[in-house]
Amino acid sequence: MIHAYDPRTGESFGEPIAESTDAEVDAAVEAAHAAAPAWRAAARPEVLEAIASALEANVEELWTVADRETALGETRLRGEVARAASQFRLFAEVLRDGGHLEAVISRQADVRRMNHPLPGVVGVFSASNFPFAFSVAGGDTASALAAGCPVVVKAHPAHPLTSELSAGVIRSALPDPALLGLVHGLAAGKRLVQHPDVVAVGFTGSIPGGKAIQALIDERPEPIPFFGELGSVNPVVVLPSAAREGLASGFAASLTLGTGQFCTNPGLVFVPDDADLVASLGTAVAGSSGSAMLSERIRQGYLDGVERLAKLTLLAEGAQGEAAWAVAPRVFTIDLAAFAEGLPAIAEECFGPSSIVVTYGDAAELPSVLERLEGSLTATVHATDVDEARPVAEALARRAGRLIWNGWPTGVAVCWAMHHGGPWPASTAPAHTSVGAMAIRRWVRPTAYQGWPSELLPPELRDDNPLGVPQRVDG
Amino acid sequence: MIHAYDPRTGESFGEPIAESTDAEVDAAVEAAHAAAPAWRAAARPEVLEAIASALEANVEELWTVADRETALGETRLRGEVARAASQFRLFAEVLRDGGHLEAVISRQADVRRMNHPLPGVVGVFSASNFPFAFSVAGGDTASALAAGCPVVVKAHPAHPLTSELSAGVIRSALPDPALLGLVHGLAAGKRLVQHPDVVAVGFTGSIPGGKAIQALIDERPEPIPFFGELGSVNPVVVLPSAAREGLASGFAASLTLGTGQFCTNPGLVFVPDDADLVASLGTAVAGSSGSAMLSERIRQGYLDGVERLAKLTLLAEGAQGEAAWAVAPRVFTIDLAAFAEGLPAIAEECFGPSSIVVTYGDAAELPSVLERLEGSLTATVHATDVDEARPVAEALARRAGRLIWNGWPTGVAVCWAMHHGGPWPASTAPAHTSVGAMAIRRWVRPTAYQGWPSELLPPELRDDNPLGVPQRVDG
Repeated sequence: MIHAYDPRTGESFGEPIAESTDAEVDAAVEAAHAAAPAWRAAARPEVLEAIASALEANVEELWTVADRETALGETRLRGEVARAASQFRLFAEVLRDGGHLEAVISRQADVRRMNHPLPGVVGVFSASNFPFAFSVAGGDTASALAAGCPVVVKAHPAHPLTSELSAGVIRSALPDPALLGLVHGLAAGKRLVQHPDVVAVGFTGSIPGGKAIQALIDERPEPIPFFGELGSVNPVVVLPSAAREGLASGFAASLTLGTGQFCTNPGLVFVPDDADLVASLGTAVAGSSGSAMLSERIRQGYLDGVERLAKLTLLAEGAQGEAAWAVAPRVFTIDLAAFAEGLPAIAEECFGPSSIVVTYGDAAELPSVLERLEGSLTATVHATDVDEARPVAEALARRAGRLIWNGWPTGVAVCWAMHHGGPWPASTAPAHTSVGAMAIRRWVRPTAYQGWPSELLPPELRDDNPLGVPQRVDG
Repeated sequence: MIHAYDPRTGESFGEPIAESTDAEVDAAVEAAHAAAPAWRAAARPEVLEAIASALEANVEELWTVADRETALGETRLRGEVARAASQFRLFAEVLRDGGHLEAVISRQADVRRMNHPLPGVVGVFSASNFPFAFSVAGGDTASALAAGCPVVVKAHPAHPLTSELSAGVIRSALPDPALLGLVHGLAAGKRLVQHPDVVAVGFTGSIPGGKAIQALIDERPEPIPFFGELGSVNPVVVLPSAAREGLASGFAASLTLGTGQFCTNPGLVFVPDDADLVASLGTAVAGSSGSAMLSERIRQGYLDGVERLAKLTLLAEGAQGEAAWAVAPRVFTIDLAAFAEGLPAIAEECFGPSSIVVTYGDAAELPSVLERLEGSLTATVHATDVDEARPVAEALARRAGRLIWNGWPTGVAVCWAMHHGGPWPASTAPAHTSVGAMAIRRWVRPTAYQGWPSELLPPELRDDNPLGVPQRVDG
């Protein structure tokens, strides 16, 4: 049985939910698969907008249940429901635009090509830390449904009730409730990955979790694409020319946002070896306060992580909140040479509100160390002198998917240009994003038609282009 | 040592080439990697066109050496050199177009995104059956160099001298010969896949070979994208309405082209249970003649494959040519019910000039069997009645990357719209193609820039768009 827990008290509450049996997983996948042909033919933009409206209409109940399960608070959770709704609206816009179909016509060879939804069900493993935006109502679900693929979600055990409630709200706006399946439990997740009707998997979670899913996929008679977002330390480089104003408070705010439970949390900050600056970072973190983590397991992972970091110098520790599963923010410090010696182990992600401040004497020594970091979702530069920033920016560009200037990595805008991905382990598929308009590309694949009769062509590839989609003709 | 062999005599000739040592592989990769920054900044379209011209200028020597190693003949090999040259020219056009950069700007969020070359070396495993177009001078090399990535090729042992010669011709047109490395031997291939500077791998070959490379990639500290084209049976469905004129001769010609050594060879043909039609297919194949296969190992694989098929009814056998490694084309037959019972083993690819003619009584029984086929690069429909074709076309579309109408699958046009890929085992990455303009996408990945200063932005993402690339702004 899966029990909901209140991170503020550590106590379980509500009716437990049974782990899904193999037969239940199979039934969910097969019902979703059976619903696929009608969904591919449906007016999907309108349905996606109806889902967005349904999420907004149910925000009270959604945030309340999620807050009890996650302790993330009203403001954040209301904002996250709005974000989830906006993701569905963005994909309605993407579908109306039609560019994602990538219709290409080569007249001389009489070959026409366009993207179609993968012919089956997308399996989604939801994340703990965004009970809406990276969970049942999240970007993987929204982009897969938009592409034309039914979805079966493996719920995260840290918010089973929110998952059930979200699924119900989304289903109320779907033409067929079978288009969104929901299963619970580790065994159900394994079964999902190995079901022959599942054609791709999206995952947001740990590196070991991602490796386990890849191993299950490799065992399938027909391996399938796997889009995993696994881990990221998100280096921030403060260059000598950086404005000091607001730096320490910005760092502490980004570090402790959502108790540090962001995949874009700033886990490494490189700063000039300047005692005042380092002290100001420490003071800001010392003045911060932790709160509850999402689950006992995540809290234990954080405590293990900071214990691993205890061999570094503890720069500061914030207050530990009152909640049962609360933790204290912690920031450690080390100099660049010692840090470089400790790579790669020293830079392993510690999920939660901890960070390492790495001090350097000469900014010219940074690039060779930055290039040795594992892949990250983001990398940030603080500077006012662009020439000073250039070598560092070039090094970081090779190790991260998104580069940020004089900002902080937490916060990922849902927009056309967003790229939320990066080299391993940030992503298992660094050409793809899990946030923004291009996320739909994970769930489509091209078909080329050669000498194909117009009557059998998809309308998007006909010469008369009845749907008016963007076509690239003869280059 | 790697020896060149003449398939017409079975005898080795020329100076043997030493298998590359680990140190030689490392040196090739590292020299290529060191050459990458200058290559990313180079005028690549002009260089690609110079490579095309160099291939054309050396066609005499290229086809002569390749013919001795492959016995594919002057006409085919001259054509293949022209095709290889045209691939380099297509990618010059792709670069000038700039659409592959996918420049997207979201002004409100101040996020800008575009594709960059993968930051390292692409490893390419060349194929046996196209000594130019899928080998050292092939599409993987051309698209990776176009993207901005240096390449190290693991030569196919069936044409080591052609590989060396091709590499020399290409290097003569490159600004730095280190941009194209060439290594020989199985151990060198393993070393290549595991080198930390290698950022992606392209492969055309067998399913076991592809699985072995995937296993090596999974062992890397940082797994990398793998684009493998592994196997394909290319079903052809002849519907009752199909024109019979030219059908048998077209089939025999496609089956025996290049001694059947095409990844798009028609390995399965579904035809109405019509004795005259079946007999005509047999007669056409009986009138054909085999010739030399590319290597003793490939020939043995074919002989093992046709022995496995011997439990079916032998419909016809062509003549076995004179060459030492010649084989006879063979076509087998079975009815649909027995074929369906034998799936999936019965439909395993047998590389070479063999095919199975599957007879059916009722075309309505086809879709459920076609959907059980493994993924293919192509699927073909012969019909005159589009309504009759619709259910079969829909079933085939789920199992293949390219659909062909009243044609034959051999022959892949190098054009913007081509898709040469498909569900596993046709491809390890069914969203990608190894032929045509979009093949470049395998070697790029996006970077997003948030709040990034104009002076540090790539020019392609600046508001003033000095290079005039296609930009998508605010959706």
